[in-house]
Amino acid sequence: MGADIEIVCIGNELLIGKVLNTNASWLGKYTTNLGISVKRVTICSDDIQEIASVIRETLNRKPQFIITTGGLGPTYDDKSLQGIAKALDRKLQINAEAFKMVQEKYAEYSKTPNLEACEMSAARVKMATLPEGTTALPNPVGTAPGVYFSFEGVVVVALPGVPKEMEAIFEASVVPLLRQASGEMGFYEESIYADNIMESVLAPLIDIVMHDNPFVYIKSHPRGRESKPHIELHFSMLWKSSENPKQILNKAISQLADLIEKNRGKIFQKTK
Amino acid sequence: MGADIEIVCIGNELLIGKVLNTNASWLGKYTTNLGISVKRVTICSDDIQEIASVIRETLNRKPQFIITTGGLGPTYDDKSLQGIAKALDRKLQINAEAFKMVQEKYAEYSKTPNLEACEMSAARVKMATLPEGTTALPNPVGTAPGVYFSFEGVVVVALPGVPKEMEAIFEASVVPLLRQASGEMGFYEESIYADNIMESVLAPLIDIVMHDNPFVYIKSHPRGRESKPHIELHFSMLWKSSENPKQILNKAISQLADLIEKNRGKIFQKTK
Repeated sequence: MGADIEIVCIGNELLIGKVLNTNASWLGKYTTNLGISVKRVTICSDDIQEIASVIRETLNRKPQFIITTGGLGPTYDDKSLQGIAKALDRKLQINAEAFKMVQEKYAEYSKTPNLEACEMSAARVKMATLPEGTTALPNPVGTAPGVYFSFEGVVVVALPGVPKEMEAIFEASVVPLLRQASGEMGFYEESIYADNIMESVLAPLIDIVMHDNPFVYIKSHPRGRESKPHIELHFSMLWKSSENPKQILNKAISQLADLIEKNRGKIFQKTK
Repeated sequence: MGADIEIVCIGNELLIGKVLNTNASWLGKYTTNLGISVKRVTICSDDIQEIASVIRETLNRKPQFIITTGGLGPTYDDKSLQGIAKALDRKLQINAEAFKMVQEKYAEYSKTPNLEACEMSAARVKMATLPEGTTALPNPVGTAPGVYFSFEGVVVVALPGVPKEMEAIFEASVVPLLRQASGEMGFYEESIYADNIMESVLAPLIDIVMHDNPFVYIKSHPRGRESKPHIELHFSMLWKSSENPKQILNKAISQLADLIEKNRGKIFQKTK
């Protein structure tokens, strides 16, 4: 069994549909491509009690990794670390390492004309106030540090919600951990497109091919209507470095393409 | 207290970041605008056990409504109704109403040249096989019916994953229920944009305005960098028809805009 991960996205803006959850999608794609199985994504509000509940529930499912996004900034609505502290029943305290990181950022910003001086106000100290026993992760492109800890065997990383900050901390500090956990696993995927065959006619053909190719997962995505079918067929598999995923997938693709053509469907390879 | 809702999105394609979860975002915006509070969004895989767990956990939190998306189609990977049946400990059985809906669709499609005849194959009957004690909802633009039931006071609606089908069933069959539950509640929001003031400087100003305007929620969204600030300030509130939300929000907006300008920030009204 490979490693698995859950993603927790914190922010009212995601729940009310103001912001599309591109963070979950970006993280899902990245971790999948590292051969890690994404088990669940949860979006919750900027509410300490709700964040604590979600974190506790997620920890109880014992994924190997949990990544949270959002709620690490200086404002009132940034409550992720308070929620995590509550979930762990730990105190929040100024983290010396995080304090230094934030302080250095503001010393740098203070060189920009018209911006405030570099004193550590309450809002700035807030970004350096972490649950006890956690580690600050440097933010290469923004201010709020990420936060890392391990709890009963689950590695948890809290990242900011601003996409480019989330991505930068993830790539610098989280990817190495994930690579190590993933070991020799990888993910391979390919799509073909079929016209002129209804999804309900495809269904038993997919069953045959999945039965004959037990390591390949096939999912159909209707892009047209059932009465004017245009369907993406997505083939994917988790593989070990000892395998040849392209060859395994291509065998399944050929078999399904043949069956579709025998049923008067038309195949387009890798077209959108 | 107004009505609340949870959204459950079922589909591997969402977890692996192949497809952006526009359904959750569309539903979140729509229901919020009806004055209904979106409490949580959960994405899970096409796995019967996992779907059943998520449905059970969501039912246990007792939101007024649960909407699920995805997994109602004819193929192997469409497992939502199996998962729901397992969660409720109910049998799956052919639903006469749903059977008629699906059958009529294929009778219609069979008029299109080059498509299969209208017989009810196993894959087609699957779309009419619902957990016992549930109701089929007509799909105005696609094939698979939606599914409606009430369980221990929670109204649950299962919708397809194809966005235009999900939206059509939602608007025809779900919106009336939500309007009734929402009663006189509504949602009002407005944004202003501030340049030249860091989020960490804004934080205590937002605190003052939220304290003075207890019904208004203010959330800052950094669109630039802390060192070159461009920040969206999003003001929102749930309101009753007896109130004047525009007036209440504008009072908070004016107060914050004044404070920002006193701190050398620059305000842009409603610009992106």
